[in-house]
Amino acid sequence: MHIGLIGLGRMGGNMRARLRDNGITVTGYDPNPAVTDVPTIAELAQAVPGPRVVWVMVPAGEITTGVIRDLADALDEGDLVIEGGNSKFTDDAVHAGILTEKGIRYMDAGVSGGVWGKENGYGLMVGGDAADVERALPVFDALRPEGPREEGFVHVGPVGSGHYAKMVHNGIEYAMMQAFAEGYELLEKRSDLIHDVTGTFAAWQRGTVVRSWLLDLMVLALKDDPKLAEISGYVEDSGEGRWTIEEGINNAVPLPAITASIFARFVSRQDDSPAMKAVAALRNQFGGHAVHKA
Amino acid sequence: MHIGLIGLGRMGGNMRARLRDNGITVTGYDPNPAVTDVPTIAELAQAVPGPRVVWVMVPAGEITTGVIRDLADALDEGDLVIEGGNSKFTDDAVHAGILTEKGIRYMDAGVSGGVWGKENGYGLMVGGDAADVERALPVFDALRPEGPREEGFVHVGPVGSGHYAKMVHNGIEYAMMQAFAEGYELLEKRSDLIHDVTGTFAAWQRGTVVRSWLLDLMVLALKDDPKLAEISGYVEDSGEGRWTIEEGINNAVPLPAITASIFARFVSRQDDSPAMKAVAALRNQFGGHAVHKA
Amino acid sequence: MHIGLIGLGRMGGNMRARLRDNGITVTGYDPNPAVTDVPTIAELAQAVPGPRVVWVMVPAGEITTGVIRDLADALDEGDLVIEGGNSKFTDDAVHAGILTEKGIRYMDAGVSGGVWGKENGYGLMVGGDAADVERALPVFDALRPEGPREEGFVHVGPVGSGHYAKMVHNGIEYAMMQAFAEGYELLEKRSDLIHDVTGTFAAWQRGTVVRSWLLDLMVLALKDDPKLAEISGYVEDSGEGRWTIEEGINNAVPLPAITASIFARFVSRQDDSPAMKAVAALRNQFGGHAVHKA
Amino acid sequence: MHIGLIGLGRMGGNMRARLRDNGITVTGYDPNPAVTDVPTIAELAQAVPGPRVVWVMVPAGEITTGVIRDLADALDEGDLVIEGGNSKFTDDAVHAGILTEKGIRYMDAGVSGGVWGKENGYGLMVGGDAADVERALPVFDALRPEGPREEGFVHVGPVGSGHYAKMVHNGIEYAMMQAFAEGYELLEKRSDLIHDVTGTFAAWQRGTVVRSWLLDLMVLALKDDPKLAEISGYVEDSGEGRWTIEEGINNAVPLPAITASIFARFVSRQDDSPAMKAVAALRNQFGGHAVHKA
Repeated sequence: MHIGLIGLGRMGGNMRARLRDNGITVTGYDPNPAVTDVPTIAELAQAVPGPRVVWVMVPAGEITTGVIRDLADALDEGDLVIEGGNSKFTDDAVHAGILTEKGIRYMDAGVSGGVWGKENGYGLMVGGDAADVERALPVFDALRPEGPREEGFVHVGPVGSGHYAKMVHNGIEYAMMQAFAEGYELLEKRSDLIHDVTGTFAAWQRGTVVRSWLLDLMVLALKDDPKLAEISGYVEDSGEGRWTIEEGINNAVPLPAITASIFARFVSRQDDSPAMKAVAALRNQFGGHAVHKA
Repeated sequence: MHIGLIGLGRMGGNMRARLRDNGITVTGYDPNPAVTDVPTIAELAQAVPGPRVVWVMVPAGEITTGVIRDLADALDEGDLVIEGGNSKFTDDAVHAGILTEKGIRYMDAGVSGGVWGKENGYGLMVGGDAADVERALPVFDALRPEGPREEGFVHVGPVGSGHYAKMVHNGIEYAMMQAFAEGYELLEKRSDLIHDVTGTFAAWQRGTVVRSWLLDLMVLALKDDPKLAEISGYVEDSGEGRWTIEEGINNAVPLPAITASIFARFVSRQDDSPAMKAVAALRNQFGGHAVHKA
Repeated sequence: MHIGLIGLGRMGGNMRARLRDNGITVTGYDPNPAVTDVPTIAELAQAVPGPRVVWVMVPAGEITTGVIRDLADALDEGDLVIEGGNSKFTDDAVHAGILTEKGIRYMDAGVSGGVWGKENGYGLMVGGDAADVERALPVFDALRPEGPREEGFVHVGPVGSGHYAKMVHNGIEYAMMQAFAEGYELLEKRSDLIHDVTGTFAAWQRGTVVRSWLLDLMVLALKDDPKLAEISGYVEDSGEGRWTIEEGINNAVPLPAITASIFARFVSRQDDSPAMKAVAALRNQFGGHAVHKA
Repeated sequence: MHIGLIGLGRMGGNMRARLRDNGITVTGYDPNPAVTDVPTIAELAQAVPGPRVVWVMVPAGEITTGVIRDLADALDEGDLVIEGGNSKFTDDAVHAGILTEKGIRYMDAGVSGGVWGKENGYGLMVGGDAADVERALPVFDALRPEGPREEGFVHVGPVGSGHYAKMVHNGIEYAMMQAFAEGYELLEKRSDLIHDVTGTFAAWQRGTVVRSWLLDLMVLALKDDPKLAEISGYVEDSGEGRWTIEEGINNAVPLPAITASIFARFVSRQDDSPAMKAVAALRNQFGGHAVHKA
């Protein structure tokens, strides 16, 4: 099989490598001449035999929408576009609409696995029509981890559902990370009692209820830097976590642990908290409690 | 009526003044010679006519317990001790036990009002026997705010219940402060839209659902320093908030808003969050996301 | 002054009464013939002398937008529309746009006070141009509570800011209600110790840090029904709370207490929690813990 | 090696089987005659060659303390007791004290693995002196999972630290379960989009960031009962989660996700929420909002 792949950054570049390793011919396009296989999307369209399959793996938002528009021009009726970026699920209806007008098929794919995916394979959640899923199955099989297909790949539902499932996956991921982080802080705080924090995390890797890949990564991080002395507690968040809460709110689904994990990240990026200034000001007002000067 | 008052710090000193203003004779004792009326507790016992009423207003914990022990020695059977400090309700059984052995009566009193209490009166929640409450009523009436007695005073239940009610009061107070603080941060953040944050808080003082004394204090604080530029977002917490959560846990009562307000204070005092270091480390491990160096 | 008022439901009807009581002539329109003063919006436009001021007080969303469109047809250049419903602040730009095309002025007003506003006056937060605020000041003065204008009225900023401030007000209100509710549950749970829950709330009305209108209402509710036996713990939420969280998320402002209060409402409306079914299922899987059959 | 094992319930019985399978001779005692090897603890002491190692695996609290007292009588100087139950870490000092008086050694062991431990091995976290750890290593090696020792076993620190680490492990576990549960509820709610919830969870088992044993169990549970229709959302909690929060509070460590997971369990067990009754009552008071009758 021969497909097109647009976007050869950290994720896309690794995916091209894995696809090729697993027998898929890939013509890749990226605006960066150092990594691209062809100079333009038009030439990508010429290189890939029709009916084409083209995977899009570029930053979510306007850039993805721009590429979708370019593909609406460059591709032909019956071609299939798979949008695998970190897009919001509501974008998929827009992107599908742009392509459907030209008779081009559309699927969305949520992709998990980060920098380890090249070696371990990528967890894939796809949304679209069954016939399109069937058609792209060799691509999915090349990207997904070894083992039973259903343990690393799912056809979730209609267009948009792949990104939706990925969004929820990331919401869960945030809360799991927060869970380990809270446990870490408590163990670290009680160093009078816990003489081997790294060893404690390491010992949870087999037999325990919390064993998980994130735990394995926590152990790697602690072996590297047992006090996390080199790292600042400043944490970015990507869109998926925010969208998960938005969906919780829109659907009246309580998400206290996931929301706590996002709010903790917001706080982590503040030099000083306006809210806590207000609390300090109030305490000073009613109780004459001393404040710390800014 | 003539009572003894032990502890003449910020709270006790103000209470002595209010009691005297309202016709109660007070003999006060404090280790600080600059404020005390008598040099020792023994002399306080001599000065106050029996059967005595002695109010204790010293820091909670060992200091209060020490004073209770001193009073067990200095007072006589039939005297009444009212412990009005910020004690944990579980201390009251201990203190009552120490005094009861000598036939001395015991009540606990939760006192709210802060530095404004001298002028406005103190909200009082007391625990003990009805006969003891009756006996000390002139003291309570002198301390409580003007207006109907039941709007500033309550006999909550048996010994310990006054401090329990005060503990819950403070838990509620924490969450109310957090509520205003969160609203403040959001208004402040959207200064593109909210051109008058102080004016907005001020306008909530009449007619709205959120009108409250804490709101009035927020307005005072903002009028003083509209950006809270002079104040750091570093907030202490006293025991009552922690005990409230402990009680929630012990009684399977969910307290998410109160707990959020305590946790926000914990975070406010951290230079860097060990938990968020762990989250940053995990993100770096799985996604190759850049970390901020400590 | 003579204004038009569209919407004569619970809020609008009370506002008409208060406006008239305070010397404003009001021509009201409502589709309900039992309450309306004129049969159509067109006749309202005829009745109100120009340049007109028309207050809109109808359900937020499509109904409000429909009325705005009707007013774009019925009114003339230089007239002023004040939209006082529970609209999302992002709707204001749309509504202003519809009217501005016709040269009609637009302001938004957040209104707080509920069913008590008729008697106590309404807290008002308005967004728009200073000249329009000036022009409508007699209307605001008639609606707002007695006392200094700045304690019940604010010109927050540009169009949209009035509804924004009202949204934040309601977010704060949610968390304050949750604060009292959590305290209530804890006091109620410890009825072994707290013999007078109603009396405890009542005693907080004067002198304490938590004194507030919501506390007064809590006392009224408990005096009516001390165990709240007649009432189910099923709580709706209106849009403002959700929008507040959405804004928190969009602006990276942590809102843990406000969010906790919304999530508690979501849970209150569930017969059974899908999430807790999942937790029960997991515990059963790993620990063989018995589950409760549905 | 030949050891004594007290407590042959679900956990202890499985552990006896695993120990024997791995070459440890075990004399087990349980009050239940159907499972015990010896009729009394005294006879267990006779059967096990000295210096003895005796593992205690009975319900935490008074029962464990009772067994410790019995062992203080039945054992000899130089024997070693390993307390592996779900005890609070603060109990360990008490238990160590009881035994140390008689010259008996004491270690605590946190044990994770549930009903799967018999087959997979148990994650072990132990607290005590290095010499005692060394002495009991064959027991730990028999119980722990196959693979590198440090991935299923850790000497955490002094007496109490094993149970402390297990407590933190369980706190993390609670939040991880809550994370999956929240994700489940959102996916389930959007069944319009998510046509295959079970398949989505299954597909996360390989390659994704959330892969974990709890995820595997979630998949097993959903394959059994895809809608969790047979199970009620009523969830007990054991002490470890509560103690974790207590420790967070005592050490000023914010634990929002862990706490959210405990509070969700508290709510899951309520027929009606007193707190939400209070919120409903307040809304009714200020807004005239209809309440649901109890």
